[in-house]
Amino acid sequence: MSFAALTLPIEPLAIRGEEITIIDQTLLPEEERRVVIDTVEAMWEAIRSLRIRGAPAIGVAAAFGLDIAARASSAGDRDGFLADVNVACKHLATSRPTAVNLFWALDRVYDRVCADPSFDVEVLRKRVRDEAVALLEEDRAAGRAIGEHGARLLRDGSVLTHCNAGGLATSGYGTALAPIYVAHQQGIQLHVYADETRPLLQGSRLTSWELSRAGVSVTVIADSMAASVLSTGKVQAVIVGADRIAANGDVANKIGTLGVAIIARAYNVPFYVAAPLSTIDIATATGADIPIEERAAEELTMFNDRRIIPSASGVFNPAFDITPHTYVTAFITERGVIEPPFAEGFLRLQRMHRENATLR
Amino acid sequence: MSFAALTLPIEPLAIRGEEITIIDQTLLPEEERRVVIDTVEAMWEAIRSLRIRGAPAIGVAAAFGLDIAARASSAGDRDGFLADVNVACKHLATSRPTAVNLFWALDRVYDRVCADPSFDVEVLRKRVRDEAVALLEEDRAAGRAIGEHGARLLRDGSVLTHCNAGGLATSGYGTALAPIYVAHQQGIQLHVYADETRPLLQGSRLTSWELSRAGVSVTVIADSMAASVLSTGKVQAVIVGADRIAANGDVANKIGTLGVAIIARAYNVPFYVAAPLSTIDIATATGADIPIEERAAEELTMFNDRRIIPSASGVFNPAFDITPHTYVTAFITERGVIEPPFAEGFLRLQRMHRENATLR
Repeated sequence: MSFAALTLPIEPLAIRGEEITIIDQTLLPEEERRVVIDTVEAMWEAIRSLRIRGAPAIGVAAAFGLDIAARASSAGDRDGFLADVNVACKHLATSRPTAVNLFWALDRVYDRVCADPSFDVEVLRKRVRDEAVALLEEDRAAGRAIGEHGARLLRDGSVLTHCNAGGLATSGYGTALAPIYVAHQQGIQLHVYADETRPLLQGSRLTSWELSRAGVSVTVIADSMAASVLSTGKVQAVIVGADRIAANGDVANKIGTLGVAIIARAYNVPFYVAAPLSTIDIATATGADIPIEERAAEELTMFNDRRIIPSASGVFNPAFDITPHTYVTAFITERGVIEPPFAEGFLRLQRMHRENATLR
Repeated sequence: MSFAALTLPIEPLAIRGEEITIIDQTLLPEEERRVVIDTVEAMWEAIRSLRIRGAPAIGVAAAFGLDIAARASSAGDRDGFLADVNVACKHLATSRPTAVNLFWALDRVYDRVCADPSFDVEVLRKRVRDEAVALLEEDRAAGRAIGEHGARLLRDGSVLTHCNAGGLATSGYGTALAPIYVAHQQGIQLHVYADETRPLLQGSRLTSWELSRAGVSVTVIADSMAASVLSTGKVQAVIVGADRIAANGDVANKIGTLGVAIIARAYNVPFYVAAPLSTIDIATATGADIPIEERAAEELTMFNDRRIIPSASGVFNPAFDITPHTYVTAFITERGVIEPPFAEGFLRLQRMHRENATLR
């Protein structure tokens, strides 16, 4: 996977020998600080406090939490060692309640170590490390592949994105930002409009920070300015990520995505959703079947400890919205670009994915 | 005009003898403080800094700025007095660039004073005052009439609005909120979704404050949540105000209005623009001819002195956008509801308005 590391735009989680560091994202954009994570508890706290965030990134981070547990284990035999790893597994799974990648990543590492027949603790310890590294490399490779496929859709000009589906949310390339990074590395002159993304300002704080750092020209706008920007005809494409994609192509993503999709359609701007195949949930028929998390009112009523909404007013704060598949021009995945009809395309690619995984 | 004062929801600019006070809207919703405005410079600063804001309100405020200038003038003759008023006129016109009401109000007061044949400075001084008071009373009457006409379009249920085109933006009833206040006073059960309206949060801070204060149920949402709310089918109408309306019905209003209009159309929700006839600028053919004020980057990059966007990132901060007339279901004016074709309706109503003004 060295091809990926060569041009990695950002390393939210870095492995140097046994040292594991993360960028503390709660300090961005004011300060870029790498902190060493050397205990299971420190990794649990980093995930819990959103020092590392984004579904793919916390899956990988949790896997390295198991690596730390494996190295710390003083067990002399297989059973003791697996018990130690299992304790860490259960604990790390409590760090965030809803992120499915977290449980998936922990299960995968633990299951594969259990499946190793060795009774040599050193072999098993190395197995944990190898599985964590494999997850990291797969995530980077998926990001890079999404970037390669997506970059072919871009030319010199402007792109608009919403929220942060960037390197910070993954192991380095991101999903929505991956095509932008790859296109930039290929010499395509791109300018990015980043919606600030209320209420938590992931666009202002994170997307603009990581794009600027990578040398990509970026302009932050309030979410309400997207229509004005798209109306100019200067934006060639909207690219967003996805939290979950239903079997018919309906997309659950950060609140505000639906509005951008409707506006993009009004101005005939292509609307792309970039996501790994693991985001596609074939078991969910349509967007109507996806539950929408409603978050704390304080995210809207307070800002830096200042009250901005009078207490007599109500607040509605859904974290996600559902964009009907009819607004999606195409999905950009690590296996290629999927155009309508999406249901067929998803099934075809996931079948390929499963066959490949079985061979591996 | 006492009928209007009886149920005036709010008095953002109050005249008590020679004392002119405004509610300093930059302090809302945390503090309701009235400040005395007793110099032209203080009025210029109050308009510039959005202590008083909203197209109709700043027109009236600017007119009272001329009243202050007239009272401060030490000129001994007609020419000297008119020159003093003219200097104030030109200065106040620089306080905000987009709102046509500002220029219109200043021109009207100045033209009518010039048209007064008196050579007595005291008579001319009183004439300035009378014209400013007339503007205030007409604005209140217009708000009440907009409310009466608009309330007929509403039934029990929800309405969505953007920014603050409320009592605070006018002399008491508002434009977009006037139909809501009148409907509420008529016993219609209304719930209002208020877009928070980044970057300056007029929806969070002002609309929710004044509606709550008047006993109207209100829920604040981030601007990016409007699509999600409108997609539910629970909202019967969107009502917004306008900063300037072109002869063809294109609307310049607070940034974000265009996006709401496009989304309302996608869900077949009526999109009403409530504004006094003075907002219609027949001399401006289309929205493309309306200059858009771009405001300071700090409105987006900073919040309560904390930097939320890295300095390497660019910022685009237009204060307004242009909603094409094709997205407008109808205009609600003090003379009635205007449906398409708008150009004809505007000319008809403005002709009536002029005839009435001549008789006055």
